[in-house]
Amino acid sequence: MVELIEGTARAGYGAVGLWRDRLDECGAGAARNRALAAGIQISSLCRGGWFCAPDAIARRARMEDNFRAVDEAAQLGALTLVLVCGPAASNDLEAGRREVVEAIEELAEYAATRDVALAVEPLHPLYCGDRSVVVTLAQALTLGVGVVIDSYHVWWDPQLEASIASSAGRILGFHLADWLAPPPDPLNGRGMLGDGTIDLRRIRRLVDSAGYEGPIEVEIFNPSVWALDPAEALELLGARYREHVAG
Amino acid sequence: MVELIEGTARAGYGAVGLWRDRLDECGAGAARNRALAAGIQISSLCRGGWFCAPDAIARRARMEDNFRAVDEAAQLGALTLVLVCGPAASNDLEAGRREVVEAIEELAEYAATRDVALAVEPLHPLYCGDRSVVVTLAQALTLGVGVVIDSYHVWWDPQLEASIASSAGRILGFHLADWLAPPPDPLNGRGMLGDGTIDLRRIRRLVDSAGYEGPIEVEIFNPSVWALDPAEALELLGARYREHVAG
Repeated sequence: MVELIEGTARAGYGAVGLWRDRLDECGAGAARNRALAAGIQISSLCRGGWFCAPDAIARRARMEDNFRAVDEAAQLGALTLVLVCGPAASNDLEAGRREVVEAIEELAEYAATRDVALAVEPLHPLYCGDRSVVVTLAQALTLGVGVVIDSYHVWWDPQLEASIASSAGRILGFHLADWLAPPPDPLNGRGMLGDGTIDLRRIRRLVDSAGYEGPIEVEIFNPSVWALDPAEALELLGARYREHVAG
Repeated sequence: MVELIEGTARAGYGAVGLWRDRLDECGAGAARNRALAAGIQISSLCRGGWFCAPDAIARRARMEDNFRAVDEAAQLGALTLVLVCGPAASNDLEAGRREVVEAIEELAEYAATRDVALAVEPLHPLYCGDRSVVVTLAQALTLGVGVVIDSYHVWWDPQLEASIASSAGRILGFHLADWLAPPPDPLNGRGMLGDGTIDLRRIRRLVDSAGYEGPIEVEIFNPSVWALDPAEALELLGARYREHVAG
């Protein structure tokens, strides 16, 4: 975690997104201090959500964990807490979607008391069965909080242009990864910018046109990227960003 | 092919869908005669489509192949020629989608002269990069021909109920397979009815409510299903249909 924060700052980036499962390594307070010392912003904390559960007791435990995620985001001074909304607890997908609506209403009240912004990240429909019942940007916009747009998750959507325009003022994060076709792995088969089928520049321009001026996070789940030397990975993604995204 | 036609008839089913890549085994005329003799209807021919190509010459070759597919469907007396529309020839997804619109306009004129019904099958967005730029039922409905609804491809769609209702009168096929989460393979990881996350009965009822009364095809790309004894596979899917789909 410390290596990530300081390495990202050293490579000249202005912000870094953190994941909760790695936060335990040093704690939210220490992570915030390291980021302040390095002069880098914490763009987001991933992730709250996973609201659905088979019974009320299990759902309450999930909500308590989300309250802790809000507290951690507040301690970090993260701009956004990212919510991944699912999967459903049974094959009743619509029931799962109703649980998400109710949970976000409750969590938003708590987040307001901590001054933490919530953002729903719609995931690719590939994940509807095991990660998120929210699978389009249009659907995410019905949930009343902010949204995170990830090129990997939304690029296929015939309504993308209209949905991004409708997101104006509510975009709290913008993630980039490319789509490899066919995906070499359902979860960890995402592509380095420029290696896949997505017109990343078009999506960046749409997000620009919607008025988004916040950080852009590159989020690539792929063992071949993780195997790179961290400084080399940061340099590569900078070069790919300039080639395939900027301008 | 002959084994499929006769085995399906023997198991008591009233219709069977055929694939073009296996049609060469016996030819369309012979397949039709076998089906007539066995008293079974040929519900559909899979597939036309794959319209997009990097240049006009290649696109023309694809169109010629689609004309042949229409001719084969006519020879078979198949109710429908199923179209799989993609992928795009480049990272310009919207250009690929425009090519599909133009190609279907041309193919529909030809199909009308052969009295063959065309139906676009929207594929799961998982396939947007390598198989189909048409990824939702709502999008398929804009293309002016019929549609095929496959539970595996559409189950995740937040607009599913409305889109199926809008399909009334244009549904020319209904396919069933379950979704395994996460998919064990991007192409051949589809599930036997009841093994996955889809509320198949709900989708069948929606399709019923839209007035569809044609054949229901079970289409499961999965080596573990293909490894079954054919008669056993037909019996298993009948049992699963009664348990998870009928009623």
